[in-house]
Amino acid sequence: MSGVSELSESDKVFLKAFLPPKSGTRSDGRDPGLPFVTLTYASSLDGMISLSPGVRTTLSGPETKSMTHYLRMHHDAILVGAGTAIADDPGLNSRYPGATLDTQPQPVIVDLRARWDVSGKNVLRLTSGRQGKAPWIISNLDVLPNQALSDAGGSLVHVEFDSTSEAGGGLGVPHTQGQQCSWSSILRSLRKRGIGSIMIEGGARVINSLLAEPMLVDSVIVTIAPTWLGVGGVAVAPSPKFDDAGQRVNSARLEHTVWRQFGADAVLCGRPMR
Amino acid sequence: MSGVSELSESDKVFLKAFLPPKSGTRSDGRDPGLPFVTLTYASSLDGMISLSPGVRTTLSGPETKSMTHYLRMHHDAILVGAGTAIADDPGLNSRYPGATLDTQPQPVIVDLRARWDVSGKNVLRLTSGRQGKAPWIISNLDVLPNQALSDAGGSLVHVEFDSTSEAGGGLGVPHTQGQQCSWSSILRSLRKRGIGSIMIEGGARVINSLLAEPMLVDSVIVTIAPTWLGVGGVAVAPSPKFDDAGQRVNSARLEHTVWRQFGADAVLCGRPMR
Repeated sequence: MSGVSELSESDKVFLKAFLPPKSGTRSDGRDPGLPFVTLTYASSLDGMISLSPGVRTTLSGPETKSMTHYLRMHHDAILVGAGTAIADDPGLNSRYPGATLDTQPQPVIVDLRARWDVSGKNVLRLTSGRQGKAPWIISNLDVLPNQALSDAGGSLVHVEFDSTSEAGGGLGVPHTQGQQCSWSSILRSLRKRGIGSIMIEGGARVINSLLAEPMLVDSVIVTIAPTWLGVGGVAVAPSPKFDDAGQRVNSARLEHTVWRQFGADAVLCGRPMR
Repeated sequence: MSGVSELSESDKVFLKAFLPPKSGTRSDGRDPGLPFVTLTYASSLDGMISLSPGVRTTLSGPETKSMTHYLRMHHDAILVGAGTAIADDPGLNSRYPGATLDTQPQPVIVDLRARWDVSGKNVLRLTSGRQGKAPWIISNLDVLPNQALSDAGGSLVHVEFDSTSEAGGGLGVPHTQGQQCSWSSILRSLRKRGIGSIMIEGGARVINSLLAEPMLVDSVIVTIAPTWLGVGGVAVAPSPKFDDAGQRVNSARLEHTVWRQFGADAVLCGRPMR
């Protein structure tokens, strides 16, 4: 079987405050044009998510795997970057007990430079087996949708460009001089397509860029495994931040944090401090 | 006041299995020539202990501060590297309620290249106020003891050199061609001076080198604060490790792990996997 089992009631209580509100959108009067965003990843004690670039590294144990599938079932969409899609060939569905095609999250792959070919990938295999929805691929290049993607019912989502002055910290993929594709434009575009809540799972570049934009993130859920991957692994570490006097300050912080042991690992839930 | 308060009974129960045995030495039939070693540090989510080299960064909250002083009272000695001594000017004593001069740990500073001048430092201030023991400074240079150190009753501990082939992963401070000062020689030297248990608190180079020597370490206690310091901070990340086929593997792992929330932070206790 899939190795995914029901969470205990106390596990569910632990996670509850960090799940998207039932209505599927932000509940606290914040910008309704944005979805509820949960940032989630698994890390080693040295803050790394993989042993080497492009290498899939299993960090967390079976207990946190079940949690991931539980969380996926509670979001309208799951998003990963193209690097993660290439390295991991992820299914991007929920295998939580009782998940139906209707409760499956919408897979979203951000592939601004059209690097990833969806043909023959797990996400399409799950679509054809009715175990997952057909993916959306986000690009800002004028490419035609891949035939396999169209056949499966998936789509290519074009995002608009922001001037860098409006965009704030973006994805760091410049399109033309002075323009780039920002997280804000991607998230707004998904909200317009009916996505009320989205779980963003990686990779490191995606996470680092979102940690620099606390206004866009509602919940952060990090699993920490009791291991060190060592120098040269792929680190989650946002860009350095400086105060007005030019002194370094912490790049990002969480508040309202709760921690819980899941097997050998710990799960941390919190909200970005703004 | 010092901001250090009594731990709750449940906090003490949580830590109990990872404290040195009452006899003050290793209880499990391991090499009696070595002290019981507890490795402990506080880290951000991106595995960093400070914002910049040489900068003291407060990461953990008041609850884990009390824990640190409780742990110090349960060890015969506390050890830090010269870099930490220079950056932090640490007191290296226990301010836990009820601590007496008799229960104070022996401060040990590893300063192989004699970079640190103890004169006027906090550790001597505490010695003169009978709030801490006079420090031992470990060196492998033929330097004379500092006058202030001698006056306070402290001493300079000379360690012998190992050939690199015997030493295994050492401190990375070569003395002469083919020789370096290993952790094993430092720890044996301290054991001969009556140190049955030692708490090693940093800095990053000290921790990284000891994570590569699981045979020398009995307990690891890591406090994790819910913040990211960002690229360019001082990271705890051991050297990369490779298997026989040349593939990267995790540099270090813990087993028998337990986690507990202390305020906004978590504390992880475990034993190095050998």
